[in-house]
Amino acid sequence: MKPDTPSGLQAQHPAAPFPAPFPVHLVGAGPGDPELLTLKAVKALRQATLALVDDLVHPGVLKFLRRSARVVHVGKRGGCASTPQAFIERLMVAEALRGERVVRLKGGDPYVFGRGGEEADALRAAGVPVVVVSGLTAGLAGPAALGLPVTDRRHTRGVVLVTGHTGEDGADEPDWPALARCGLTLVVYMGVARLAHIVACLQAGGLPSHTPAAVVCSAHTPQQRQALCTLGALCATVQREGLASPAIVVVGDVVQASPHWAVAGAPFSASAAGACGASAPGAARELLHALGRA
Amino acid sequence: MKPDTPSGLQAQHPAAPFPAPFPVHLVGAGPGDPELLTLKAVKALRQATLALVDDLVHPGVLKFLRRSARVVHVGKRGGCASTPQAFIERLMVAEALRGERVVRLKGGDPYVFGRGGEEADALRAAGVPVVVVSGLTAGLAGPAALGLPVTDRRHTRGVVLVTGHTGEDGADEPDWPALARCGLTLVVYMGVARLAHIVACLQAGGLPSHTPAAVVCSAHTPQQRQALCTLGALCATVQREGLASPAIVVVGDVVQASPHWAVAGAPFSASAAGACGASAPGAARELLHALGRA
Repeated sequence: MKPDTPSGLQAQHPAAPFPAPFPVHLVGAGPGDPELLTLKAVKALRQATLALVDDLVHPGVLKFLRRSARVVHVGKRGGCASTPQAFIERLMVAEALRGERVVRLKGGDPYVFGRGGEEADALRAAGVPVVVVSGLTAGLAGPAALGLPVTDRRHTRGVVLVTGHTGEDGADEPDWPALARCGLTLVVYMGVARLAHIVACLQAGGLPSHTPAAVVCSAHTPQQRQALCTLGALCATVQREGLASPAIVVVGDVVQASPHWAVAGAPFSASAAGACGASAPGAARELLHALGRA
Repeated sequence: MKPDTPSGLQAQHPAAPFPAPFPVHLVGAGPGDPELLTLKAVKALRQATLALVDDLVHPGVLKFLRRSARVVHVGKRGGCASTPQAFIERLMVAEALRGERVVRLKGGDPYVFGRGGEEADALRAAGVPVVVVSGLTAGLAGPAALGLPVTDRRHTRGVVLVTGHTGEDGADEPDWPALARCGLTLVVYMGVARLAHIVACLQAGGLPSHTPAAVVCSAHTPQQRQALCTLGALCATVQREGLASPAIVVVGDVVQASPHWAVAGAPFSASAAGACGASAPGAARELLHALGRA
């Protein structure tokens, strides 16, 4: 199978002393629900002989592999002991050069907070071609699971996708106050562990505490949970409801466009600390029934 | 078929005087290549009796519809005469209430610059349930077609997705100088028509003219074309190469991570105006062959 994207440029090295390796496919598994895989991802999985799989990939995605395919779990959760990145890259290269058809399965999109760029570089440096199969990223598809469009011309001109996870020295901290002032929807990946810090920075940057906000955990899985409230109430809500990673935080007026915002009550008229709604999937509909609205 | 996302909250109105309408599916068709559709999108297409289709949807996507399904093209290209939004919304509502299984097919993702939020509101207001099926948005999948990860921890902490298209009075112009200073990758949708203005604003905001930049047109289609160059050379390159919408513009250091950046020559050592490479699909590989690198 020839690489079918320009990222597979180095596929055919005429002077190579061994048969050209199959391209390694960096495949985005999307946010959860295996039905959110692309047809191209399914095709890559069906042709793979070896799958290197991240923690956040839904187990149901693996059903598209052949029975004979080997599966290696190489998870790397934020803050936990995990397989070193360099090991994963060496393993991909070695197996591709041995003639395996390697799929590297990542939650979401390999090129959005997925280290796909680093892995593609390592592969190309070793003469292994690369094909990237984009997946739905949780920062966009997660809010959609709440009926929340991250852009909506009635509210904002765009959306910022940013990581709340920083290196050990914190030197790579995003400029939160600048982001607070840009007028766009903010979507924070891996932000729950440092939520108090991030919220304080956004408020210091000028975002009012009544700014609508949302958290969605394990979006598009049976474990999905969410809360919609104000920025000022966000930390208390997340703690009270026990919302934990993997989670996406959304901050901006567009959160009001979610039908869950109405379900959550009238946030602005309640006290900041109580201006919240949290629900498991299905609970919102039950709530609507209880309210006589459905 | 019951709505399977929380956005279909109003599905079952017990007092409705007629059979509950089927949920309208707002389906993201992705950036081009029909293989980039999700399985869930294909399922929705197979069940539809009526598809309302935007201009930017790849015609190959329609092959997943039943033969008996009606197709109505309701394109709305920027700046061109097109079907009014209110008409599309009324049509969706009327057909759903008549008992049709309606799919609203949009290029990319319905909730990322897709007016999906407005359409969902119109449907809910009429008592029609809504299911959103996210699609790959061109702002992330387009750069991936150039091997370009929009985030890469070696270059940036995140990415801004913003529209270059403004309302007639320009009142909803993004704060380009603020975005220039945020240190994140900038991805501009619908930016080619106003490129000179946008580039000038970004430079006025402090982005150096040697900042790497890329344009990709009709990504993931046989018509894909791209250019990689510096911000200072972007307008001249786009004009010289005749690059036109639909296009995605990417600005930021991460553009260097694309293998096309190397193919394009050594941009920083050439003159700003000449520091560019543009290629149709396949041309980059031919160029590599000519250079003896493949």
